[in-house]
Amino acid sequence: MNIPKTSFPRIVIIGGGFAGIALAKKLSKQEVQVVLLDKHNYHTFQPLLYQVSTGGLEPDSIAYPIRKVLKDFPNFHFRLAHVEEIVAAENKVITNIGELKFDYLVVASGSKTNYFGNAEIEKNSMAMKTIPQSLNLRSLILENFEDALLTSDLHERNALMNFVIVGGGPTGVELAGALAEIKKGILPKDYPDLDTRLAQIHIIQSGDCILNGMSEKASEKAEDFLEKLGVNIWKNLRVTGYDGKTVTTNTDLTFETATLIWAAGVKGATIKGLDASGYITKGERLLVDEFNQVKGFANIFAVGDIACMVTNEFPNGLPMMAQPAIQQGKQLGDNMVRLIEKKPMKPFEYKDKGAMATIGRNKAVVDLPKFKFQGVFAWYVWMFVHLFFLIGFRNRMVVFVNWVYNYVRFDREARLIIRPFKRRLKEAE
Amino acid sequence: MNIPKTSFPRIVIIGGGFAGIALAKKLSKQEVQVVLLDKHNYHTFQPLLYQVSTGGLEPDSIAYPIRKVLKDFPNFHFRLAHVEEIVAAENKVITNIGELKFDYLVVASGSKTNYFGNAEIEKNSMAMKTIPQSLNLRSLILENFEDALLTSDLHERNALMNFVIVGGGPTGVELAGALAEIKKGILPKDYPDLDTRLAQIHIIQSGDCILNGMSEKASEKAEDFLEKLGVNIWKNLRVTGYDGKTVTTNTDLTFETATLIWAAGVKGATIKGLDASGYITKGERLLVDEFNQVKGFANIFAVGDIACMVTNEFPNGLPMMAQPAIQQGKQLGDNMVRLIEKKPMKPFEYKDKGAMATIGRNKAVVDLPKFKFQGVFAWYVWMFVHLFFLIGFRNRMVVFVNWVYNYVRFDREARLIIRPFKRRLKEAE
Repeated sequence: MNIPKTSFPRIVIIGGGFAGIALAKKLSKQEVQVVLLDKHNYHTFQPLLYQVSTGGLEPDSIAYPIRKVLKDFPNFHFRLAHVEEIVAAENKVITNIGELKFDYLVVASGSKTNYFGNAEIEKNSMAMKTIPQSLNLRSLILENFEDALLTSDLHERNALMNFVIVGGGPTGVELAGALAEIKKGILPKDYPDLDTRLAQIHIIQSGDCILNGMSEKASEKAEDFLEKLGVNIWKNLRVTGYDGKTVTTNTDLTFETATLIWAAGVKGATIKGLDASGYITKGERLLVDEFNQVKGFANIFAVGDIACMVTNEFPNGLPMMAQPAIQQGKQLGDNMVRLIEKKPMKPFEYKDKGAMATIGRNKAVVDLPKFKFQGVFAWYVWMFVHLFFLIGFRNRMVVFVNWVYNYVRFDREARLIIRPFKRRLKEAE
Repeated sequence: MNIPKTSFPRIVIIGGGFAGIALAKKLSKQEVQVVLLDKHNYHTFQPLLYQVSTGGLEPDSIAYPIRKVLKDFPNFHFRLAHVEEIVAAENKVITNIGELKFDYLVVASGSKTNYFGNAEIEKNSMAMKTIPQSLNLRSLILENFEDALLTSDLHERNALMNFVIVGGGPTGVELAGALAEIKKGILPKDYPDLDTRLAQIHIIQSGDCILNGMSEKASEKAEDFLEKLGVNIWKNLRVTGYDGKTVTTNTDLTFETATLIWAAGVKGATIKGLDASGYITKGERLLVDEFNQVKGFANIFAVGDIACMVTNEFPNGLPMMAQPAIQQGKQLGDNMVRLIEKKPMKPFEYKDKGAMATIGRNKAVVDLPKFKFQGVFAWYVWMFVHLFFLIGFRNRMVVFVNWVYNYVRFDREARLIIRPFKRRLKEAE
C-alpha cells in the first residue's frame, strides 16, 4: 500500500466506528501518522439503523464520509480496505489492497452478529449491523407486504405479514416498536386490501426480561409500552432453528414467518492472526488491559466492541455499546501520545453515562446514573442525545426534518424498495 | 392477479412516472377502477438523478411511494409488477405476477437508454435513468478515486480520474457541471494525495451545439459556464466504441477512461405485443393520435415518453420530457371520463412551458416562452421549479436542507459507497 513514509510513528487503525473515529480525532494534532482502514468509506451511526430498516430515515443521513471527518489532519490517510490478517511478529497487516507496516496497531473492528454457530439461522435470517443489511431488511419487509397481496393462501399471507425478532435488547425493542407503528399507521393506508390483524410482531427473548442490563423499571415500562403497541413478547424462550418458513424453539411453540430478524447477540469481529485462544475471550473479543493494550503485545491495542476490558463491575468485559467505545478511543489517543513520549499511560476508567431505548412516538426509557425516567420526556431526551451524537450538521438537519415530519404526519416516507432483496424483479435495476 | 372486480370500468396504467401519476390522480375522483403497475414501488423524480450520482442528494428524497400518492382513492390498486406482454386482442396484460384483464389500457412505460445498437458500449458504460443506476454511478466514481490512490501507474490513475460523458443534453450538461464542482471542491480535501489536474471531465456531443433544443443563447452560455468550470466540450464528434478502457470516436481521437457515462439518447420502453412495426416510430415510440390513442386501438392509449404524438411544430413527436408527460396524463384523465360517458374527447394541445438546465452553483440557463435568461437568477428559478415539482413535503424539505447546506459549505456529503459497484469488497455488505 503506497502510504508515504514520514519520520513520525505510524499508527494503523482498523475500523472507522465510534472507537476508531474518536481515536483518530484525538491523534489529529499529534506528531504521528494515522492510517485508518475500513471496508466502508463512511462511518455508520448504528443506533439509528433500525429507522433505516423501517423507512423512517434515509441511509445517507446516518452515514458520514470518513475522509471528511479528518480532512484537516495532514498526516491522516484513509484506505478503503478489508484487513485479511494481522502479522504481529512482522508489525504488518495484510489487506485486499496490499500489505502495510505499522509502528502501532489499533484494532477497532467492532462486532458482528452472533448466530452462536447455527448456520441455518445465519443463512435464513436478517441481521441489522450495517447500512446494506438494514436496506435489505427494509426491502424485504416491503416486498413481503407486496407478496401478501398476491397470494390467496391465507397461511402464506400470514407468514408474509408476521415478523419475528429474536433478542429483546435495544435493537430488538426499537425495531419491534417501529414495526408496530408501521402496522398501525402505514399498513391500513398503503394496503387497504390486507387485513392488518394478520401482521403480528413477536419478540423472543431467552432471558426473563427485555432490555436486560437496564433498570428493572425501564424493562417493565418498555414491556408495557410494547404491549400497548400490540407487540407479542415471549420470554424464557429460545429459538432453535429457522428454515426460512418456520421458527422452532426449545418448546413446542413454533412461528410461521417469512422474516426472522436476528438481534440476539453480537461477537467481536476478530481478524486472522489475532484470533488464537490466548487473547480471545468468550464473546470472541480481544482481552485488553486497562490501557487497551492487547495482552501479550507492546504495540497492539484494541478499543470498542472488539476489546474485552474486564473491570470489577463488568467481569465479562465492558458492554459492547457506543459509550465505552468513544471513551476508550479518546483515552487511547492520549495514552498513545504518552507512550510515544515515553511517559506512563493512564488506566482507563469507564464513566457509565447510562442507557436508553425508544419504543415509539412519545415512548422511551432512559436510565441515567442518578435518574431513571420513562415516557414522553424520555423520548425527547432520547432524540436530543441521538441528534447530538450524530456526526455532521447536514445529517442532524436531515434527521431532524424527517423526525418532525414523521411525528406530525404519523408517516414514514422512505418506504422504498430501492434495491429489491428477493431479487424477484431483476429488471427493476 | 387478484384485483377485486367492480362494476366500474377497469383502467390499467403501466408505469408510475410523470405521465402515469398525473393520469391516476386525475382519475381518482371518477367512477373507474385504476390499476397501476410499476416495477418500482416509488415514483422517481428523474431530473435530479444526477445529484444522487454526484453525492449531492440522497436517493430517498427524490423518490416517493406510489401507494402514498393515491392512498385516498378507494378504487386505486397498485401492484409491483413487470409487464411482459400486452395481448390487445384479449384485452389483457401478462406480468411476472400473473395476468390482468383491462377495459382500457394506458401505456406510460417511459423511455430507456438508447445505445443505438452498440452492445459493447451498453455493456461497459454507465446509464443514469433509474435510482439504482444513479447509485451505481455514485459508487463507481468514488471507487475510482479510491483505486486511483492505490496505483503507481500514472496511465491507469489518469484513466480512473477521467470522466467521459457522451451527450450534451441537459443530463450530460448537469452531470458534467456537478463533476467539475467535485473536482474543485471535494477532491483536494478528500484526496490530498491525488493530483486533481488529472481529473478531466469531457462532454462529447455529436452535433454542433450542446443543449440542442434550447435557445442559441442558452446553448452558448451553458458552454461558457462549463468551460469556466474546466469541462472539455467536444462537438461534432461521435463515440464509436468503448471496451471499458478506451473510448474510440469517428476521428483519430481516443479517450482513456474507467468511466463512460452514456447520456446520448433515449428510446421508448416498448412492451412485447405492442412493438410491431405498424405503430412504432423511429425512436421506438408508440404512434398516438391527438387523443393519445394508439393508432389502431380503441381502448389502448399511450402517454409520456413512450407516446409519439406528431404535431406541426414537432414532426418527430413531442419532446421526451416531463412537461408533455404531465400535460398528456392530465388531459387523458379528462378524456377517458368523456370516453366512458360517450362524450367526444378533446384533442391534446401542448403548452410549451420552456426548458432549463443548471450547470453549477449560481449557473443555470432558462428558456421561457417569452423570456430567456442565464446566470444566478436562472439558477434560483431552476431550484424553485424543481422543488415545486418534486412530490411530497418531506422530500422538498430534505432537498432544500441539502441544497442550502451544499451551497453554504461547498460540499456534497452523500459521497458514500453504500453498495460497491465494482463488487471488489464483497465483505462490505
